Amino acid sequence: MPQVLMIGGSDAGISAALRIRELSPSSEVTVMLADDYPNFSICGLPFYLSGEVTDWRNLAHRTKDDILREGIHLLANHRATAINPDQRLVTAIQANGSQVQVPYDKLIIGTGAIPRAPQVEGLDLPGVYFLRWMGDSFRVNQHLVEQNPRSAVIIGGGYIGLEMADALTLRGMAVTLVEHSPTVLKTVHASFGERVAEELQSHGIIVATGISVERIEQHNHQLRVVGSPGFSATGDLVLVAVGAVPATELAQTAGVTIGDYGSIRVNRRMETNVPHIYAAGDCVETWHRLLQKPVYLPLGTTAHKQGRIAGENAIGGDREFDGTLGTQVVKVFELAIARTGLREAEAEQAGFQSRTVEFETWHHKVYYPGAHPLRFRVTGDVRTGQLLGAQIIGHYQGEVAKRVDIFAAAIHHGMTVEQMSDLDLSYTPPLSSPWDPVQMAAQAWVKQVRKDREPALVSI
Amino acid sequence: MPQVLMIGGSDAGISAALRIRELSPSSEVTVMLADDYPNFSICGLPFYLSGEVTDWRNLAHRTKDDILREGIHLLANHRATAINPDQRLVTAIQANGSQVQVPYDKLIIGTGAIPRAPQVEGLDLPGVYFLRWMGDSFRVNQHLVEQNPRSAVIIGGGYIGLEMADALTLRGMAVTLVEHSPTVLKTVHASFGERVAEELQSHGIIVATGISVERIEQHNHQLRVVGSPGFSATGDLVLVAVGAVPATELAQTAGVTIGDYGSIRVNRRMETNVPHIYAAGDCVETWHRLLQKPVYLPLGTTAHKQGRIAGENAIGGDREFDGTLGTQVVKVFELAIARTGLREAEAEQAGFQSRTVEFETWHHKVYYPGAHPLRFRVTGDVRTGQLLGAQIIGHYQGEVAKRVDIFAAAIHHGMTVEQMSDLDLSYTPPLSSPWDPVQMAAQAWVKQVRKDREPALVSI
Repeated sequence: MPQVLMIGGSDAGISAALRIRELSPSSEVTVMLADDYPNFSICGLPFYLSGEVTDWRNLAHRTKDDILREGIHLLANHRATAINPDQRLVTAIQANGSQVQVPYDKLIIGTGAIPRAPQVEGLDLPGVYFLRWMGDSFRVNQHLVEQNPRSAVIIGGGYIGLEMADALTLRGMAVTLVEHSPTVLKTVHASFGERVAEELQSHGIIVATGISVERIEQHNHQLRVVGSPGFSATGDLVLVAVGAVPATELAQTAGVTIGDYGSIRVNRRMETNVPHIYAAGDCVETWHRLLQKPVYLPLGTTAHKQGRIAGENAIGGDREFDGTLGTQVVKVFELAIARTGLREAEAEQAGFQSRTVEFETWHHKVYYPGAHPLRFRVTGDVRTGQLLGAQIIGHYQGEVAKRVDIFAAAIHHGMTVEQMSDLDLSYTPPLSSPWDPVQMAAQAWVKQVRKDREPALVSI
Repeated sequence: MPQVLMIGGSDAGISAALRIRELSPSSEVTVMLADDYPNFSICGLPFYLSGEVTDWRNLAHRTKDDILREGIHLLANHRATAINPDQRLVTAIQANGSQVQVPYDKLIIGTGAIPRAPQVEGLDLPGVYFLRWMGDSFRVNQHLVEQNPRSAVIIGGGYIGLEMADALTLRGMAVTLVEHSPTVLKTVHASFGERVAEELQSHGIIVATGISVERIEQHNHQLRVVGSPGFSATGDLVLVAVGAVPATELAQTAGVTIGDYGSIRVNRRMETNVPHIYAAGDCVETWHRLLQKPVYLPLGTTAHKQGRIAGENAIGGDREFDGTLGTQVVKVFELAIARTGLREAEAEQAGFQSRTVEFETWHHKVYYPGAHPLRFRVTGDVRTGQLLGAQIIGHYQGEVAKRVDIFAAAIHHGMTVEQMSDLDLSYTPPLSSPWDPVQMAAQAWVKQVRKDREPALVSI
């Protein structure tokens, strides 16, 4: 059995290691990681900083002991600095500064991503934080606990920015959220982004969109964030969350090819161009099932899948990554916002003749108490009828997340929008309708496309 | 355009009528119904009788006016008594006793089902009720309101029995539930049925299983239900809910063939053997997608689908019913219990080499507050790996219903259990895990089947 070395102790690396041990209980598997926190749920950091997760140790998907019990070797506090693919050696620096060389038969790179640093002055001021790894989180938490800040400015209205706005509000802080785009959560349609902004505002958060942040400066023991047009906000704390860029420096020392998005180029077997070197997770480009080409879409779910596949193939397996649909969900206060597949503009750009239809209904029969409204945007191709994408926004207890997953399963199989009505979905009045809302939304799309085609007939 | 007549104003009939009007706005569509309550949600009756639905009129999927506005003619209080397929005439008796004959070009029979009457003495005593149609519901409600009963015995531990046990408990009544099988809710595995019984008991309900009810008798102004072995329970009210039998008397006047289950034989176009006569809903046999043969599985979801297809085909369409998977969910107090596809025994009987693996996990990351445990039973074929079925039990806010729908979508497309891990499902810590619980359950199945095969390797 080959000795397999994973670089990176987060989702991709640990998934690869677990898969190898599952398939081959006699294999030798080592995970090298730069810090001391293997297999932590970095998606959970906002809930630690909100105080909802009371002990950071609970953020571990698995504890160190769990991982060791699986027969996986751990090299913690080993920062990999170079890969020599000819000798199959990885050079790493340990916490004490000494250098070691670790051999491998097969290598899986899972170095993840680093926070994108915007073109803003003052990012190095005390009280300005990025949020990506456990270490960042500890620094922010220390600030929260020791300095008891009363206000924060969050730069970036994506997932992490929104979750942190929720988290710090929950701690009783006054929060201002600044976003460069015209609406927050630009991964969904603008009308949904506006609904999210309303949710933030209803919880006292100041939301400023369409702002180019220019600088952060110290101002009366606070930090002032200044941008154009005419934006200025002060806070005791500034969080910067404007996206992630793949961490590929290490991979490049091995001559690994970097793709169009600055991420590691891999095939669907998660192989790089360099023999015996695989890569997975936030550092790689990801095959898109609908676009049939690679994109950069770093998500924890994808990292788990890709790591698992890289691990299996590293020990002689033959499995291909089936592709991402960009399925994702975020909870902001009482709202869940989910999407899968392509939005209208993305579909157009990809050459589909797309049409998006918006539809609203209740998450269960309205006669039963507690029905929440769900808003859908269904995107399909008017020529073929193919289902291309869906977005849902509504109360998080309205099964928004798993409803978008029904669309994801349908898109995975190339279903038409019309065929959604053929799915045998569960119903009871307190939980759904005889046609589930996902089917009603699909039917609304089909009706609208028919109307688009036959305007005269409909007006009769 | 043909004149289409629907007999039956519930799910199948109204779905057919709506579909016809949608596809052909100039068509002539008439729905004949025996009572005055078209398009009522009979699945909602327990929630009316619990008091959660305060006005029975809210149980209408659509009001009479809504239906008329869709351009559908209604013949309410017309009890159809005979079909003459040669003359294409339906004979009906109106409320005033007069007889009318209604012509049709195409006929869709949607006469539904009637409650199964068990072999029990005393079913005709005052205070003993069946529950199927609006009229039944009014009689029970009148009894509840006027006589303020304090206790009830429910015969039958299926969906309606369980929902009524929940409903009457919510009204403050003392409830005894009697079931013939060894466990309640025999549509799911016995261990799930036992969990449901615990839920009932924790709400003060007396649950008696494995009981053959023999008679109901009057006893000191109450009703006494007596059965063997050694069962006796008294209540002010007795509800009988032991299943449904297809209502086919009318269809037989037209020479329509009845299938193996006593229901109307139809093909996947919802055509009967008699020209120009279609049938749909609880009165017909239903094509099973996995078994590839008809079964009797009366469900509102299926009635909607079949009605829609019958309607489309009646006006010249060409659509086939894609088949049922028996997907269903019921909420009992805080629990939701859902299933789709085949259970182990059903799969064996159908010739699959089935294996069922039970698995438990949290509905979202356990570090985030409020995680509920979900229990899964995944059934697959060990030869082909094909996913055959899934059952889930857990807190109703754990997205149990729409999680079973992900399985339903996967089974619909013939996925293997292993392929469940390829689905791109949504994740955020407050709503799921990087592998959704449905994927973890599928992975547990795959691991267990591997262990079954390689016991020696695993024991190393």
